[in-house]
Order: sequence, then structure tokens, then C-alpha cells
Amino acid sequence: MAPAPRLVLATRNPGKLRELRELLRGQVPGLDVDTQVIDAAAAGVPDVPETGVTFEENALLKAHAVAAATGLPAVADDSGLAVDVLGGAPGIFSARWSGLHGDDAANLALLLAQLADIAAEHRGAAFVCAAALALPDGSETVERGELRGTLLQAPRGEGGFGYDPILLPAGEERSCAELSGAEKNAISHRGQAFRALVPALVAALAEEKTGA
Amino acid sequence: MAPAPRLVLATRNPGKLRELRELLRGQVPGLDVDTQVIDAAAAGVPDVPETGVTFEENALLKAHAVAAATGLPAVADDSGLAVDVLGGAPGIFSARWSGLHGDDAANLALLLAQLADIAAEHRGAAFVCAAALALPDGSETVERGELRGTLLQAPRGEGGFGYDPILLPAGEERSCAELSGAEKNAISHRGQAFRALVPALVAALAEEKTGA
Repeated sequence: MAPAPRLVLATRNPGKLRELRELLRGQVPGLDVDTQVIDAAAAGVPDVPETGVTFEENALLKAHAVAAATGLPAVADDSGLAVDVLGGAPGIFSARWSGLHGDDAANLALLLAQLADIAAEHRGAAFVCAAALALPDGSETVERGELRGTLLQAPRGEGGFGYDPILLPAGEERSCAELSGAEKNAISHRGQAFRALVPALVAALAEEKTGA
Repeated sequence: MAPAPRLVLATRNPGKLRELRELLRGQVPGLDVDTQVIDAAAAGVPDVPETGVTFEENALLKAHAVAAATGLPAVADDSGLAVDVLGGAPGIFSARWSGLHGDDAANLALLLAQLADIAAEHRGAAFVCAAALALPDGSETVERGELRGTLLQAPRGEGGFGYDPILLPAGEERSCAELSGAEKNAISHRGQAFRALVPALVAALAEEKTGA
């Protein structure tokens, strides 16, 4: 008999699910990400409206909703691209920037069009991630990671997802979409936030085991 | 013989041209806005790329370019909608928010779609205007005006232009597009900035007259 799922990832984005699984692989003793980590769609959890106005608020909203619906520890992130000259926008609106939720190509094309007249020295930006863990008892932990860089004038690379093809991380000569998954996870906003969350995950799963 | 044009408005936006003429009417002694105030298109000035990253920078860029091209005092403004939850965006990008420069309907529809999940208490915003005067000798003046309010969930009213139909000014029950032109000018960001600019305009035109 397969072990029961013990951790739910509150996402419906396949790119993010893949990345989160890679980030968790080998990090949490006793957790087999292929069988024990499922996503919100697989757990049958309805979509959670992101009504918060910060990355942290939205990550916690999603994690609590999924933990309450499944009775399992739930992990969620809210991530986005904060563009300096836009005062931090698209920010929490990154996934729906074009008005079309999850249409990476439309979102990226719109941002490039908006910034068309902006020269390189004003194209600073950062990927930001808030990673949250919520438990069915209502307790929570949230951590933030950031990856600073410069926005390109046109997309480069085939890897990653979202705005990866237009962010050149500081000190890098390749866009985030030209890095391997492992290279990206080593420096990414999401990698930083999830690594910071690991101790809380380990504690939560140990508690769950003891409680069961 | 008609008097020669003496002031150029650096805009190609008919709504803005109409508003600026109304704002200047009767404000500058001896200036007949119908015959002496022309726009950049009428003066045959090529479009000026807005490469600045603040309202003030862009207003000054346009005013200087038009003053240099025409040898006349030139007035320009850069205006936009600064949305709190977007960190001040669309800001200087307001007119090209959808990627389609000057398409008010597309820009407004995109902004409403981006903010669809945002509740009323987080929908604070301000119209911002920087009004600049540049003289052919390179001297300059720039003034700022702001009109704070709350963003509606759907457009209301037929007046104005741009984002007027979705901003409810603080203390008002009508959107900016439901106010008369005179009511809007009395409180608007552009009205405030242009009224602040009047003394510099009066001085510049007096100087021009003396110099001629």
C-alpha cells in the first residue's frame, strides 16, 4: 500500500509544482516528494481567490485554505516580478498582468511593451517569493526570498516559466530561462524562500507522524 | 493679420489639448488661447520619446524638445494614475499600459482586470500631473499636482478621458468622468499643476513680448 499523501502544495501551476518538488527533494527526511507531495488540484481543493495585497498575505491565504480543506500540512507560495521603475509592480499581479491569468506569453509581452522606452540603467527588477506553511490547527510560517537582476529587452532561453526569459540575475550572463533547473533553484527567490521554510516543514511533518 | 502663435502645447492628445486650453483661458493676460496656443502637431514638431522615469523628467523632456524645435515657449505635462496597491504604477506608463499607446479603453480595461480581486479598502489611487514650461533659451519650470481618490470596479460617466471613469475623488460621489469640465479642472491634478505654473507662464510671455 502506498503511503498516504502528507503534504499538499497549494498551486495549479505545473511549472511551479515541478520546481517546488525539485526544491523539496531530499530536504525533508522521510518525505518522498513523488508519492507524498500532491498539488491542490489532485487533492480536489477549489481555487482560492488571492485577495491579499502582499506576497505574504496571498501565500498564507492559499496555504490556510488548503490545510483547512484537506486536513494536511499545506505549502503555498506567492511569487512575482517586482520592477523598480513600476514601483514594485507587477508584484502580486504578475500571473494576471495581461488580465489573462496564467498566460505567461501575454504577461511577458505586455511588460516588455510597457517598458519599451526604458533604458538598461532603469531596468532593475527582482523576483520575489513568499513561501508559507499552514497546518490544519491554524499555525503558520512564512519566509521570503528575492533574486535581483536586470530586465532584458527581449526574451532569451527556453527553460523556466513566467518572466524567467527576461530576468538577467545580477552577476549572471544568462537569463533565468537559460539556467538549468538546478542552477536556477540554487539562486532563485523561490529556492531561497523554500530553503528557509525547510526547518518548519521538518518540524510539522515530525509532529504529524507523532500525532498519527 | 492674426497674431503669431506664442505658446506651444507639447501634446498630441485631443482630450488633453482641450483641457489645457480651458485651464489657460483667462489665466494669462494678453494670451488668446484660441489663436495663440497651438499644439505640437500643428507646430509640425515630431513625436518626443518619453525616456524619463518620473513625471517631471518626461514633462521637461517634451517641453524642451518642442521649445528647441519651434523657438517658442513650450508647455508640456506628463500625467498618470498612481495606484497604491501597484506601488504607484501605471504612473508614467498610464497612456501605454495595455501596450497600445493612447488606447484609453484598452488601458482602463486592463487595469480593472488586474485589480479585479482587490477590495475597496485597498483601491486608493491618485491622478498625478507634472506641468513643465521650457523656454528656447533652455530655462525651465516644473510643477506637480495630485488628485487622490478610490478606484471603482467599473467605469462610470462619459466625460473626461483616460482613467477618469474609474477614479472617485476623495469626498466626491461622482467619478471624474461624471464631473463637468469646469468641476474637474477645479480639483484635478492637471488643474493644480497648471495653476501653479501660471506665474512662470506670465513671466515668460512678458519677457518674449519685451524681447520681440
